[in-house]
Amino acid sequence: MATHDKPILHGYFRSSCSWRVRIAFALKGIEYEQIPVNLIKDGGQQLTDQYKALNPMQQVPVVEMDGITLSQSLAVIQYIDETRPGPKLLPACPKRRAQVRVICDVIASGIQPLQNLYVLQKIGADKVEWAQHFIQRGFQALEPILKETAGTYCVGDELSMADICIVPQVYNAQRFKVDVGQFPTIDRLNQTLEEIEAFRVSHPSCQPDTPADLRA
Amino acid sequence: MATHDKPILHGYFRSSCSWRVRIAFALKGIEYEQIPVNLIKDGGQQLTDQYKALNPMQQVPVVEMDGITLSQSLAVIQYIDETRPGPKLLPACPKRRAQVRVICDVIASGIQPLQNLYVLQKIGADKVEWAQHFIQRGFQALEPILKETAGTYCVGDELSMADICIVPQVYNAQRFKVDVGQFPTIDRLNQTLEEIEAFRVSHPSCQPDTPADLRA
Repeated sequence: MATHDKPILHGYFRSSCSWRVRIAFALKGIEYEQIPVNLIKDGGQQLTDQYKALNPMQQVPVVEMDGITLSQSLAVIQYIDETRPGPKLLPACPKRRAQVRVICDVIASGIQPLQNLYVLQKIGADKVEWAQHFIQRGFQALEPILKETAGTYCVGDELSMADICIVPQVYNAQRFKVDVGQFPTIDRLNQTLEEIEAFRVSHPSCQPDTPADLRA
Repeated sequence: MATHDKPILHGYFRSSCSWRVRIAFALKGIEYEQIPVNLIKDGGQQLTDQYKALNPMQQVPVVEMDGITLSQSLAVIQYIDETRPGPKLLPACPKRRAQVRVICDVIASGIQPLQNLYVLQKIGADKVEWAQHFIQRGFQALEPILKETAGTYCVGDELSMADICIVPQVYNAQRFKVDVGQFPTIDRLNQTLEEIEAFRVSHPSCQPDTPADLRA
Protein backbone atom coordinates (compact mmCIF):
# COMPACT_ATOMS: atom_id res chain seq x y z
CA MET A 1 0.00 0.00 0.00
CA ALA A 2 2.56 2.55 -1.12
CA THR A 3 0.00 5.36 -1.29
CA HIS A 4 -0.93 4.86 2.35
CA ASP A 5 2.66 5.29 3.37
CA LYS A 6 2.64 8.81 2.03
CA PRO A 7 1.42 11.47 4.46
CA ILE A 8 -1.84 13.12 3.41
CA LEU A 9 -2.14 16.89 3.77
CA HIS A 10 -5.62 18.35 3.88
CA GLY A 11 -4.99 21.99 3.10
CA TYR A 12 -5.83 25.05 1.05
CA PHE A 13 -3.44 26.69 -1.38
CA ARG A 14 -3.71 30.13 0.20
CA SER A 15 -3.81 29.11 3.88
CA SER A 16 -0.59 30.28 5.52
CA CYS A 17 -0.73 27.41 8.02
CA SER A 18 -1.06 24.86 5.19
CA TRP A 19 1.90 26.49 3.47
CA ARG A 20 4.00 26.10 6.64
CA VAL A 21 3.46 22.34 6.51
CA ARG A 22 4.19 22.20 2.77
CA ILE A 23 7.51 23.97 3.38
CA ALA A 24 8.43 21.47 6.12
CA PHE A 25 7.66 18.49 3.88
CA ALA A 26 9.69 20.06 1.07
CA LEU A 27 12.68 20.85 3.31
CA LYS A 28 12.66 17.25 4.54
CA GLY A 29 12.26 15.88 1.01
CA ILE A 30 9.07 14.01 1.98
CA GLU A 31 6.54 13.16 -0.70
CA TYR A 32 2.95 13.66 0.33
CA GLU A 33 -0.55 13.66 -1.11
CA GLN A 34 -2.62 16.83 -1.06
CA ILE A 35 -6.37 16.77 -0.54
CA PRO A 36 -7.65 20.31 -1.12
CA VAL A 37 -10.19 21.76 1.28
CA ASN A 38 -11.72 24.83 -0.31
CA LEU A 39 -12.36 27.31 2.51
CA ILE A 40 -14.64 29.46 0.33
CA LYS A 41 -16.57 27.15 -2.03
CA ASP A 42 -19.91 25.71 -0.89
CA GLY A 43 -19.75 28.05 2.12
CA GLY A 44 -16.49 26.40 3.22
CA GLN A 45 -15.67 22.71 2.83
CA GLN A 46 -14.01 22.76 6.27
CA LEU A 47 -17.49 23.09 7.79
CA THR A 48 -18.79 19.69 6.62
CA ASP A 49 -19.40 16.92 9.17
CA GLN A 50 -16.87 14.79 7.33
CA TYR A 51 -14.13 17.38 7.77
CA LYS A 52 -15.19 18.16 11.33
CA ALA A 53 -14.54 14.52 12.20
CA LEU A 54 -10.98 15.00 10.93
CA ASN A 55 -10.48 18.33 12.71
CA PRO A 56 -13.08 19.54 15.20
CA MET A 57 -11.61 23.06 14.91
CA GLN A 58 -12.72 23.02 11.26
CA GLN A 59 -9.49 24.57 10.08
CA VAL A 60 -6.70 23.57 7.74
CA PRO A 61 -4.21 21.98 7.74
CA VAL A 62 -4.73 18.43 8.88
CA VAL A 63 -2.07 15.81 8.29
CA GLU A 64 -2.64 12.05 8.35
CA MET A 65 0.58 10.10 8.79
CA ASP A 66 1.87 7.12 10.74
CA GLY A 67 -1.69 6.16 11.67
CA ILE A 68 -2.47 9.43 13.46
CA THR A 69 -4.36 12.55 12.46
CA LEU A 70 -2.86 15.87 13.50
CA SER A 71 -4.09 19.42 13.22
CA GLN A 72 -2.17 22.55 14.24
CA SER A 73 0.72 23.27 11.90
CA LEU A 74 3.45 23.70 14.53
CA ALA A 75 2.56 20.38 16.17
CA VAL A 76 2.70 18.75 12.72
CA ILE A 77 6.04 20.33 11.83
CA GLN A 78 7.65 19.32 15.11
CA TYR A 79 6.28 15.78 14.70
CA ILE A 80 7.81 15.62 11.22
CA ASP A 81 11.08 16.97 12.58
CA GLU A 82 11.22 14.49 15.45
CA THR A 83 10.42 11.44 13.33
CA ARG A 84 12.03 12.06 9.94
CA PRO A 85 15.63 12.36 8.76
CA GLY A 86 16.89 15.35 6.82
CA PRO A 87 17.77 18.88 7.92
CA LYS A 88 16.67 19.65 11.47
CA LEU A 89 13.92 22.24 11.67
CA LEU A 90 14.80 23.18 15.26
CA PRO A 91 18.35 23.92 16.44
CA ALA A 92 20.05 21.52 18.86
CA CYS A 93 20.91 24.31 21.34
CA PRO A 94 18.03 24.83 23.83
CA LYS A 95 18.44 28.62 23.86
CA ARG A 96 18.24 28.80 20.08
CA ARG A 97 15.31 26.36 20.05
CA ALA A 98 13.56 28.70 22.47
CA GLN A 99 14.28 31.70 20.22
CA VAL A 100 12.87 29.80 17.25
CA ARG A 101 9.73 28.95 19.22
CA VAL A 102 9.30 32.57 20.39
CA ILE A 103 9.29 33.76 16.77
CA CYS A 104 6.93 30.96 15.69
CA ASP A 105 4.54 31.69 18.54
CA VAL A 106 4.49 35.44 17.97
CA ILE A 107 3.24 34.56 14.48
CA ALA A 108 1.11 31.50 15.28
CA SER A 109 -0.52 32.92 18.43
CA GLY A 110 -0.04 36.66 18.10
CA ILE A 111 -0.72 37.41 14.44
CA GLN A 112 -2.21 34.67 12.28
CA PRO A 113 -5.21 33.76 14.51
CA LEU A 114 -6.33 37.38 14.45
CA GLN A 115 -6.37 37.67 10.68
CA ASN A 116 -7.60 34.25 9.60
CA LEU A 117 -10.71 33.75 7.52
CA TYR A 118 -13.04 32.82 10.36
CA VAL A 119 -12.19 35.87 12.46
CA LEU A 120 -12.35 38.26 9.52
CA GLN A 121 -15.77 36.91 8.56
CA LYS A 122 -16.90 37.64 12.10
CA ILE A 123 -15.41 41.17 12.01
CA GLY A 124 -17.33 41.96 8.83
CA ALA A 125 -17.05 45.34 7.14
CA ASP A 126 -13.90 46.49 8.97
CA LYS A 127 -12.01 43.32 8.23
CA VAL A 128 -9.21 44.77 6.10
CA GLU A 129 -8.31 47.45 8.70
CA TRP A 130 -8.55 44.79 11.44
CA ALA A 131 -6.17 42.44 9.62
CA GLN A 132 -3.76 45.26 8.80
CA HIS A 133 -3.75 46.39 12.41
CA PHE A 134 -2.83 42.99 13.82
CA ILE A 135 -0.23 42.23 11.17
CA GLN A 136 1.34 45.66 11.61
CA ARG A 137 1.36 45.27 15.40
CA GLY A 138 2.89 41.81 15.16
CA PHE A 139 5.58 42.88 12.70
CA GLN A 140 6.46 45.85 14.90
CA ALA A 141 7.25 43.29 17.62
CA LEU A 142 8.93 40.76 15.35
CA GLU A 143 11.30 43.26 13.77
CA PRO A 144 13.33 44.02 16.95
CA ILE A 145 13.21 40.34 17.98
CA LEU A 146 14.59 39.25 14.60
CA LYS A 147 17.16 42.03 14.61
CA GLU A 148 18.60 40.33 17.71
CA THR A 149 18.37 36.72 16.56
CA ALA A 150 18.84 36.77 12.79
CA GLY A 151 21.87 35.80 10.79
CA THR A 152 21.27 34.59 7.26
CA TYR A 153 17.98 33.21 8.55
CA CYS A 154 15.61 34.06 11.41
CA VAL A 155 17.81 32.52 14.12
CA GLY A 156 21.46 32.51 13.16
CA ASP A 157 22.56 30.87 9.95
CA GLU A 158 20.48 27.70 10.12
CA LEU A 159 17.07 27.39 8.54
CA SER A 160 14.41 26.60 11.14
CA MET A 161 10.70 26.46 11.90
CA ALA A 162 10.87 30.24 12.41
CA ASP A 163 11.70 30.70 8.72
CA ILE A 164 8.86 28.35 7.86
CA CYS A 165 6.48 30.65 9.73
CA ILE A 166 7.72 34.02 8.55
CA VAL A 167 7.39 33.63 4.78
CA PRO A 168 3.67 32.70 4.77
CA GLN A 169 2.98 35.53 7.23
CA VAL A 170 4.71 38.03 4.94
CA TYR A 171 2.58 36.67 2.10
CA ASN A 172 -0.53 37.42 4.19
CA ALA A 173 0.82 40.88 4.98
CA GLN A 174 1.21 41.59 1.28
CA ARG A 175 -2.33 40.34 0.56
CA PHE A 176 -3.61 42.86 3.09
CA LYS A 177 -1.34 45.59 1.66
CA VAL A 178 0.84 46.05 4.71
CA ASP A 179 4.09 47.72 3.62
CA VAL A 180 6.70 45.14 4.58
CA GLY A 181 9.45 47.58 3.60
CA GLN A 182 8.89 49.27 7.00
CA PHE A 183 10.46 46.19 8.57
CA PRO A 184 13.92 45.82 7.02
CA THR A 185 14.92 42.62 8.81
CA ILE A 186 11.64 40.84 8.01
CA ASP A 187 11.84 42.05 4.42
CA ARG A 188 15.44 40.93 3.98
CA LEU A 189 14.79 37.49 5.51
CA ASN A 190 11.71 37.00 3.35
CA GLN A 191 13.61 37.86 0.18
CA THR A 192 16.38 35.42 1.07
CA LEU A 193 13.95 32.63 1.95
CA GLU A 194 11.70 33.10 -1.09
CA GLU A 195 14.59 32.02 -3.29
CA ILE A 196 14.93 28.63 -1.61
CA GLU A 197 13.53 25.69 -3.57
CA ALA A 198 11.41 24.33 -0.67
CA PHE A 199 9.67 27.68 -0.30
CA ARG A 200 9.11 28.02 -4.05
CA VAL A 201 7.60 24.59 -4.73
CA SER A 202 5.23 25.00 -1.79
CA HIS A 203 4.11 28.53 -2.74
CA PRO A 204 0.34 29.21 -2.95
CA SER A 205 0.74 30.15 -6.61
CA CYS A 206 1.55 26.59 -7.71
CA GLN A 207 -0.53 24.11 -5.70
CA PRO A 208 -2.96 21.55 -7.13
CA ASP A 209 -5.91 23.68 -5.99
CA THR A 210 -4.53 27.07 -7.07
CA PRO A 211 -7.12 28.66 -9.38
CA ALA A 212 -5.88 29.33 -12.92
CA ASP A 213 -5.99 33.13 -12.53
CA LEU A 214 -3.73 33.02 -9.48
CA ARG A 215 -1.11 30.69 -10.92
CA ALA A 216 2.42 31.96 -11.19
CA MET B 1 24.58 36.23 43.28
CA ALA B 2 21.92 33.79 44.39
CA THR B 3 19.07 36.10 43.43
CA HIS B 4 20.35 36.36 39.87
CA ASP B 5 20.36 32.60 39.53
CA LYS B 6 16.64 32.53 40.10
CA PRO B 7 14.50 32.95 36.99
CA ILE B 8 12.47 36.15 36.96
CA LEU B 9 8.85 35.98 35.81
CA HIS B 10 7.24 39.20 34.66
CA GLY B 11 3.56 38.35 34.83
CA TYR B 12 0.09 39.26 36.01
CA PHE B 13 -1.88 37.24 38.52
CA ARG B 14 -4.91 36.82 36.26
CA SER B 15 -3.15 36.31 32.92
CA SER B 16 -3.74 32.72 31.81
CA CYS B 17 -0.41 32.67 29.96
CA SER B 18 1.45 33.82 33.10
CA TRP B 19 -0.33 31.10 35.06
CA ARG B 20 0.88 28.47 32.57
CA VAL B 21 4.48 29.42 33.32
CA ARG B 22 3.85 29.46 37.08
CA ILE B 23 2.46 25.91 36.87
CA ALA B 24 5.53 24.75 34.94
CA PHE B 25 7.91 26.25 37.50
CA ALA B 26 5.90 24.66 40.32
CA LEU B 27 5.81 21.22 38.67
CA LYS B 28 9.57 21.37 38.20
CA GLY B 29 10.12 22.61 41.75
CA ILE B 30 11.94 25.71 40.52
CA GLU B 31 12.04 28.81 42.70
CA TYR B 32 11.58 32.05 40.84
CA GLU B 33 11.04 35.74 41.45
CA GLN B 34 7.84 37.42 40.33
CA ILE B 35 7.78 40.98 39.04
CA PRO B 36 4.14 41.97 38.62
CA VAL B 37 3.08 43.81 35.47
CA ASN B 38 -0.35 45.28 36.06
CA LEU B 39 -2.20 45.09 32.75
CA ILE B 40 -4.90 47.53 33.91
CA LYS B 41 -3.27 50.09 36.21
CA ASP B 42 -1.84 53.30 34.69
CA GLY B 43 -3.44 52.28 31.38
CA GLY B 44 -1.40 49.08 31.37
CA GLN B 45 2.17 48.73 32.64
CA GLN B 46 2.96 46.42 29.69
CA LEU B 47 2.75 49.47 27.42
CA THR B 48 5.73 51.33 28.93
CA ASP B 49 8.93 51.72 26.91
CA GLN B 50 10.78 49.85 29.64
CA TYR B 51 8.52 46.81 29.30
CA LYS B 52 8.45 47.05 25.51
CA ALA B 53 12.25 46.63 25.54
CA LEU B 54 11.71 43.37 27.42
CA ASN B 55 8.88 42.17 25.17
CA PRO B 56 8.09 44.08 21.98
CA MET B 57 4.67 42.34 21.88
CA GLN B 58 3.85 44.17 25.15
CA GLN B 59 2.29 41.08 26.66
CA VAL B 60 2.93 38.94 29.70
CA PRO B 61 4.62 36.66 30.56
CA VAL B 62 8.30 37.34 30.06
CA VAL B 63 10.90 35.13 31.73
CA GLU B 64 14.53 36.07 32.27
CA MET B 65 16.73 33.05 32.93
CA ASP B 66 20.14 31.71 31.96
CA GLY B 67 21.04 35.10 30.47
CA ILE B 68 18.20 35.17 27.96
CA THR B 69 14.83 36.88 27.88
CA LEU B 70 11.91 34.84 26.55
CA SER B 71 8.32 35.74 25.86
CA GLN B 72 5.60 33.33 24.66
CA SER B 73 4.57 30.91 27.38
CA LEU B 74 4.89 27.68 25.38
CA ALA B 75 8.41 28.57 24.28
CA VAL B 76 9.27 29.30 27.92
CA ILE B 77 7.73 26.05 29.20
CA GLN B 78 9.54 23.94 26.60
CA TYR B 79 12.81 25.72 27.41
CA ILE B 80 12.31 24.94 31.09
CA ASP B 81 11.48 21.34 30.23
CA GLU B 82 14.52 20.90 28.01
CA THR B 83 17.00 22.42 30.46
CA ARG B 84 15.77 21.48 33.94
CA PRO B 85 15.42 18.16 35.79
CA GLY B 86 12.16 17.01 37.33
CA PRO B 87 9.02 15.56 35.76
CA LYS B 88 8.97 15.82 31.96
CA LEU B 89 6.32 18.20 30.66
CA LEU B 90 6.24 16.54 27.24
CA PRO B 91 5.99 12.77 26.73
CA ALA B 92 8.96 10.87 25.27
CA CYS B 93 6.83 9.26 22.52
CA PRO B 94 6.70 11.51 19.42
CA LYS B 95 3.01 10.71 18.72
CA ARG B 96 2.03 11.62 22.26
CA ARG B 97 4.22 14.74 22.13
CA ALA B 98 2.35 15.73 18.98
CA GLN B 99 -1.01 15.16 20.68
CA VAL B 100 0.11 17.32 23.60
CA ARG B 101 1.16 20.08 21.21
CA VAL B 102 -2.13 19.89 19.27
CA ILE B 103 -4.08 20.49 22.48
CA CYS B 104 -1.73 23.29 23.58
CA ASP B 105 -1.96 24.99 20.19
CA VAL B 106 -5.75 24.75 19.98
CA ILE B 107 -5.72 26.75 23.22
CA ALA B 108 -2.70 28.99 22.59
CA SER B 109 -3.49 29.81 18.95
CA GLY B 110 -7.20 29.01 18.63
CA ILE B 111 -8.75 30.32 21.83
CA GLN B 112 -6.64 32.50 24.12
CA PRO B 113 -5.45 35.06 21.53
CA LEU B 114 -9.07 35.78 20.62
CA GLN B 115 -10.16 36.55 24.15
CA ASN B 116 -7.16 38.30 25.60
CA LEU B 117 -7.29 41.80 27.03
CA TYR B 118 -5.90 43.61 23.99
CA VAL B 119 -8.38 42.05 21.55
CA LEU B 120 -11.34 42.54 23.87
CA GLN B 121 -10.44 46.21 24.32
CA LYS B 122 -10.46 46.51 20.54
CA ILE B 123 -13.82 44.72 20.24
CA GLY B 124 -15.39 47.15 22.71
CA ALA B 125 -19.04 46.85 23.73
CA ASP B 126 -19.58 43.31 22.43
CA LYS B 127 -16.52 41.94 24.18
CA VAL B 128 -18.25 39.47 26.52
CA GLU B 129 -20.22 37.80 23.70
CA TRP B 130 -17.07 37.77 21.55
CA ALA B 131 -15.02 36.06 24.28
CA GLN B 132 -17.80 33.58 25.01
CA HIS B 133 -18.13 32.73 21.34
CA PHE B 134 -14.44 31.92 20.87
CA ILE B 135 -14.11 29.99 24.12
CA GLN B 136 -17.28 28.01 23.34
CA ARG B 137 -16.08 27.28 19.81
CA GLY B 138 -12.66 26.20 21.06
CA PHE B 139 -14.07 23.96 23.78
CA GLN B 140 -16.44 22.35 21.27
CA ALA B 141 -13.32 21.32 19.35
CA LEU B 142 -11.24 20.40 22.38
CA GLU B 143 -13.87 18.13 23.91
CA PRO B 144 -13.80 15.44 21.16
CA ILE B 145 -10.00 15.75 20.88
CA LEU B 146 -9.58 15.18 24.63
CA LYS B 147 -12.13 12.38 24.63
CA GLU B 148 -9.72 10.55 22.31
CA THR B 149 -6.46 11.37 24.07
CA ALA B 150 -7.30 11.67 27.78
CA GLY B 151 -6.60 9.20 30.53
CA THR B 152 -6.22 10.60 34.02
CA TYR B 153 -4.79 13.70 32.34
CA CYS B 154 -5.15 15.36 28.92
CA VAL B 155 -2.94 12.84 27.12
CA GLY B 156 -2.90 9.47 28.82
CA ASP B 157 -1.92 9.20 32.47
CA GLU B 158 1.06 11.54 32.48
CA LEU B 159 0.83 15.22 33.31
CA SER B 160 1.99 17.38 30.41
CA MET B 161 2.06 20.85 28.92
CA ALA B 162 -1.50 20.19 27.70
CA ASP B 163 -2.70 20.07 31.31
CA ILE B 164 -0.75 23.25 31.99
CA CYS B 165 -2.74 24.95 29.23
CA ILE B 166 -6.20 23.62 29.96
CA VAL B 167 -6.66 24.73 33.57
CA PRO B 168 -5.98 28.45 32.97
CA GLN B 169 -8.25 28.34 29.90
CA VAL B 170 -11.08 26.85 31.96
CA TYR B 171 -10.49 29.63 34.50
CA ASN B 172 -10.97 32.16 31.68
CA ALA B 173 -14.09 30.33 30.52
CA GLN B 174 -15.55 30.61 34.00
CA ARG B 175 -14.68 34.32 34.18
CA PHE B 176 -16.69 34.81 30.99
CA LYS B 177 -19.53 32.61 32.30
CA VAL B 178 -19.17 29.82 29.76
CA ASP B 179 -20.86 26.70 31.18
CA VAL B 180 -17.96 24.24 31.34
CA GLY B 181 -20.41 21.49 32.38
CA GLN B 182 -21.34 21.19 28.68
CA PHE B 183 -17.89 19.68 28.13
CA PRO B 184 -17.65 16.65 30.43
CA THR B 185 -14.08 15.65 29.56
CA ILE B 186 -12.73 19.19 29.97
CA ASP B 187 -14.68 19.58 33.21
CA ARG B 188 -13.45 16.28 34.62
CA LEU B 189 -9.80 16.98 33.71
CA ASN B 190 -10.00 20.45 35.21
CA GLN B 191 -11.40 19.13 38.47
CA THR B 192 -8.65 16.52 38.71
CA LEU B 193 -5.91 19.01 37.89
CA GLU B 194 -7.15 21.75 40.22
CA GLU B 195 -6.39 19.49 43.18
CA ILE B 196 -2.72 19.19 42.32
CA GLU B 197 -0.36 21.26 44.46
CA ALA B 198 1.46 22.88 41.51
CA PHE B 199 -1.83 24.14 40.11
CA ARG B 200 -3.01 25.40 43.52
CA VAL B 201 0.10 27.37 44.51
CA SER B 202 0.20 29.05 41.10
CA HIS B 203 -3.52 29.97 41.07
CA PRO B 204 -4.45 33.61 40.32
CA SER B 205 -6.13 33.85 43.73
CA CYS B 206 -2.85 33.65 45.66
CA GLN B 207 -0.14 35.52 43.78
CA PRO B 208 1.92 38.44 45.12
CA ASP B 209 -0.09 40.87 42.99
CA THR B 210 -3.54 39.39 43.63
CA PRO B 211 -5.73 42.22 44.99
CA ALA B 212 -7.08 41.63 48.50
CA ASP B 213 -10.71 41.29 47.35
CA LEU B 214 -9.82 38.48 44.93
CA ARG B 215 -7.70 36.45 47.35
CA ALA B 216 -8.80 32.91 48.12
